[in-house]
Amino acid sequence: MKFNDFLQNLKSYEPGKNIDTIAKENNLKEVIKLASNENSLGVSTLACKAILENISKVNLYPDDMTELKQALANKHKLKYENVIIGAGSDQIIEFAIRAKLNSNNAFLQAGVSFAMYEIYAKQMNAKCYKTSSLTHDLCEFESLYKKHKNEIKIIFLCLPNNPLGECLDADEVFKFASLVDDDCLIILDAAYNEFATYKDTAKYIKISKFLEKFTNVLYLGTFSKLYGLSGLRVGYGLASTEIINVLNKLRAPFNVNTLALKAAQAALKDIDFINKTLENNFNQMKIYEEFAIKNKIKYILSYTNFITYFLGQKNSTELSEKLLKKGIIIRDLKSYGLNAIRISIGLTEDNEKFFTEFNKFL
Amino acid sequence: MKFNDFLQNLKSYEPGKNIDTIAKENNLKEVIKLASNENSLGVSTLACKAILENISKVNLYPDDMTELKQALANKHKLKYENVIIGAGSDQIIEFAIRAKLNSNNAFLQAGVSFAMYEIYAKQMNAKCYKTSSLTHDLCEFESLYKKHKNEIKIIFLCLPNNPLGECLDADEVFKFASLVDDDCLIILDAAYNEFATYKDTAKYIKISKFLEKFTNVLYLGTFSKLYGLSGLRVGYGLASTEIINVLNKLRAPFNVNTLALKAAQAALKDIDFINKTLENNFNQMKIYEEFAIKNKIKYILSYTNFITYFLGQKNSTELSEKLLKKGIIIRDLKSYGLNAIRISIGLTEDNEKFFTEFNKFL
Repeated sequence: MKFNDFLQNLKSYEPGKNIDTIAKENNLKEVIKLASNENSLGVSTLACKAILENISKVNLYPDDMTELKQALANKHKLKYENVIIGAGSDQIIEFAIRAKLNSNNAFLQAGVSFAMYEIYAKQMNAKCYKTSSLTHDLCEFESLYKKHKNEIKIIFLCLPNNPLGECLDADEVFKFASLVDDDCLIILDAAYNEFATYKDTAKYIKISKFLEKFTNVLYLGTFSKLYGLSGLRVGYGLASTEIINVLNKLRAPFNVNTLALKAAQAALKDIDFINKTLENNFNQMKIYEEFAIKNKIKYILSYTNFITYFLGQKNSTELSEKLLKKGIIIRDLKSYGLNAIRISIGLTEDNEKFFTEFNKFL
Repeated sequence: MKFNDFLQNLKSYEPGKNIDTIAKENNLKEVIKLASNENSLGVSTLACKAILENISKVNLYPDDMTELKQALANKHKLKYENVIIGAGSDQIIEFAIRAKLNSNNAFLQAGVSFAMYEIYAKQMNAKCYKTSSLTHDLCEFESLYKKHKNEIKIIFLCLPNNPLGECLDADEVFKFASLVDDDCLIILDAAYNEFATYKDTAKYIKISKFLEKFTNVLYLGTFSKLYGLSGLRVGYGLASTEIINVLNKLRAPFNVNTLALKAAQAALKDIDFINKTLENNFNQMKIYEEFAIKNKIKYILSYTNFITYFLGQKNSTELSEKLLKKGIIIRDLKSYGLNAIRISIGLTEDNEKFFTEFNKFL
């Protein structure tokens, strides 16, 4: 059977193995996952309660998302009309790419950044420009953008950057946005921005301030990281009503499910869970930094809930496989072209297990 | 900002109002919804239990769907590789349309059928052919297909048909499939097929039999109707591995959430819930048929969990609005170009309320 041409160059996404599979394959009683930057504290109590309270409603189609949209609008000092909800923020990335990119144009991203930008752009046959710098270098973004101005219709800034962890200051981003034409969409991927802001308020992307000045900015937030709801698939986009209305045209009627909507609303209010998550994260991050320094491992200062170690002479794939057999799942960054590993910051005991096994490898 | 051309002709989907909104707007204590063909018996006990057991896992990304895919493969006597899971079966419709349709080709459907076929096809700028018959008339399908063979790349057969309720026999469908070229995808939308099969086994689409002979058939199933999980958004597609592999290229890594996957698996096993749903449905359907006959209302014999009444001199929109003010939500079929209403078969007491209020209108 013949399919549309663009599909020929696409690969199926291969999801990482889950805890149960690894346990079974390696005959292990316990497996710890430090691979997907999930919330190591588990699930917010308020979110659990909201799920319990709404189980009896799952025979009905999800509601129109009014409440969650209003809650997010309030949080970000915007209007209800500036919000779109997605099945994870990556669904908003997909909508934006389908709305703007095509085989005659291109997007721009940092040398290494979130893999889904490129995956979705390939579905539209669009060209990809990357900075030669792996991390975000706005000078290089500017020169590449100016050089290919007629082509580049989306610029992705990942703030902080997944999978490397660095983060631009909000002021620099604001200045950079002034240099970009109105017709080029600037996507501020803020999936981990709450972590960055906790560490350094200069990283805080106040989207209402951006939207006062720029009509071409789209902010992405998620409930998968700080809010601990990776398994429920809820993210959101914030932008001008013009952009939101267009993205909504690509949104399926019921793209996020009832329990996810209710859990997300509740998680927004769980201040205690949020604070504990942030505290644990950066307390444990210190230990990861100290470990790296002590063992002369190169790492990037991280503004997220993960840390990236560059391995030098050791091989990242070999290490990842060895750890897997010991029941520790981490992320090998070989698919990003790096001899590096990304470790999600876990609880004390999980992190200690990682250090113990990692030490044997050094 | 300029967006891709195809977006200009698209409208945002306007979801129907939910129970809470209608209650608030009309100052009503109780609102009944007979509008979206949800399961009137509520949620399967086994599905509820599965949700409860998995709440603590929602901080982790969903698993790779192996278990649900295997369960569906077993049910349909196929292999794991013949299954794709979607956030509702309409997500599989979207994948199929994006894979096959473009601005140079077309699809074919019955005069009145599921609205999402056309909505997704418009996103690809594809042309739509409809039979002049509102319900499925395979002779007309055949002649239209033969006339526009070079253009038509997808044929939708909705078995039974939403929103009208009629259903072709599986044998007729099988014969029709033999007339269609290998390069044209035949989509058998079986969202309500379990209801049809219960009423008349001649309606049963045995997909394994189709796949033995045809490489161009895609079967769609859903957990939103019989299985009572509309709010969780789980559907599936069954086809040759060639088709499944292509559709998977368009699937986002985690398109269905953890609780939805677990609930769906459990719901498959809840035979008691399934049987009660089917029994209640057709017992109550009889009363709807008797009511129609008694009041000389034209209706189509329904193989689903809804019934469509044609209103003759009375206006469907006026009726729908009157009922809404009384706290009864039904589906006005005006948007399908019909002066008709679609009523989901509810529980005895809900149906009686409908009859009482409807009687006042007659």
